[in-house]
Amino acid sequence: MISVERLSLNQATVRRLKVAEAVELCARHQIPGIGLWRDAVAELGLAKTAAAVRAAGLHVSSLCRGGFFTHADPEGRAAAAAGNQAAVIEAAELGADALVLVSGGLVPGSRDLGLARRLITDGIADLVPFAQSAGVRLGIEPLHPMFCADRCAISRLGEAVDLSLQFPVDAVGVVIDTYHVWWDSQLAADIERAAGRIVSYQLCDWTLPLPKDTLLGRGHLGDGFIDFRSITAQVLAAGYTGYAEVEIFNQEVWNAPADDTASTVRSRFAELLG
Amino acid sequence: MISVERLSLNQATVRRLKVAEAVELCARHQIPGIGLWRDAVAELGLAKTAAAVRAAGLHVSSLCRGGFFTHADPEGRAAAAAGNQAAVIEAAELGADALVLVSGGLVPGSRDLGLARRLITDGIADLVPFAQSAGVRLGIEPLHPMFCADRCAISRLGEAVDLSLQFPVDAVGVVIDTYHVWWDSQLAADIERAAGRIVSYQLCDWTLPLPKDTLLGRGHLGDGFIDFRSITAQVLAAGYTGYAEVEIFNQEVWNAPADDTASTVRSRFAELLG
Repeated sequence: MISVERLSLNQATVRRLKVAEAVELCARHQIPGIGLWRDAVAELGLAKTAAAVRAAGLHVSSLCRGGFFTHADPEGRAAAAAGNQAAVIEAAELGADALVLVSGGLVPGSRDLGLARRLITDGIADLVPFAQSAGVRLGIEPLHPMFCADRCAISRLGEAVDLSLQFPVDAVGVVIDTYHVWWDSQLAADIERAAGRIVSYQLCDWTLPLPKDTLLGRGHLGDGFIDFRSITAQVLAAGYTGYAEVEIFNQEVWNAPADDTASTVRSRFAELLG
Repeated sequence: MISVERLSLNQATVRRLKVAEAVELCARHQIPGIGLWRDAVAELGLAKTAAAVRAAGLHVSSLCRGGFFTHADPEGRAAAAAGNQAAVIEAAELGADALVLVSGGLVPGSRDLGLARRLITDGIADLVPFAQSAGVRLGIEPLHPMFCADRCAISRLGEAVDLSLQFPVDAVGVVIDTYHVWWDSQLAADIERAAGRIVSYQLCDWTLPLPKDTLLGRGHLGDGFIDFRSITAQVLAAGYTGYAEVEIFNQEVWNAPADDTASTVRSRFAELLG
């Protein structure tokens, strides 16, 4: 279905590793793509990170992340905008396929979802010209509805697609992360509508019970409830030609030796999607 | 906006109380409606429960619950059907406005959401003639997507409405519980589409962080992130004339004295929705 030549490892899956170590890990396990996080890139430095991934022949499938547009005050919005412009510059330098945007939840102290969504739309609109001039595509990532209040008021792929369609196709697309959208009865239809706009495809499984920190309840492919073949077939049918990036937030996975994790990522990917 | 004469207390909010105690609690706090649970009703006995609520002048706004249609084997489905028929008989005897249906998650061992949803549709279809002859309305309750795998594959109000529209209006409607649907950008449109089909309206707040048992992360009205006035206005504009039932699953609320809980339920309701 999809070759391991399109596999990418998001570095959050091996969170304890520094960028240089994660790059070496991918090279050692013949994983050709990597998803990077801004804090880790900053630690090594942007130029050194770009040099390291190029030297290893790795492709940067995504940079995580920008967004968090939902501030009540102009100062907060200006600070977010400046941070997002910096993220665009980093994504350009790294040659990342997309800058992932996690949009932000309710404005602090507010219960107005409409306000949050208008601020998100405005924030993206402000960023688009800068992203276009840098040649970077922004990826709107819907997060699972359980993160709506505090992290991301864009909860369904359909919302992300509707939002992306308000902007030029070279500037704004959507990120499909199986963990966040698998449950949605409209998913197949919305993936079809997302044709030409899918800038990142992320994989991890939904496992139960959820841990106390609900950010960390994600599992290796096959350990949970998601039908990866079905969703991946839909994403490919929509014309997606990019990488499939495995991104797992899970304390047990983080505690495991990174080489074991990389082996499991690769073998599960081949087994379930080969 | 909505009078306390339409307030109902779901007995799960005061879970430690037996039915007779919950009935007395409602009477003592001038709460005119009650939502009952089948296990508690069985403990006192159906006839005695019906007599107790009538003697107290209480209205039964809902009976919780039937459903759980997603069994792989015919025996499992037959057992669920028998249980659901028993629940219909109980709802009729209690004069409940609705029998709440929690539909069931993925079929055990399966990752096929389409299969789960077909079994749910078939299970409801089987139950409808029985419900009609008993004069009981079934209420399809969408549960928050975080319960999709293990409890309810109907995650959005829109899905519940689409499903209900396949059946006669006197037999099948939808349950709107703010906790499960508040995040949905299509909620207002789907409430409008639900006109004439809303058979139960349940209230509790979304609070953070989620507890380890994610079933219990619900709060008193006003303690969380939900805009109750906005959603209630939409429900009323759709022509809903029934009770507004406060149903809170929360260990701290359960540990509190029941009279304190009832007072808080009544005062928050009046404050936020009066």
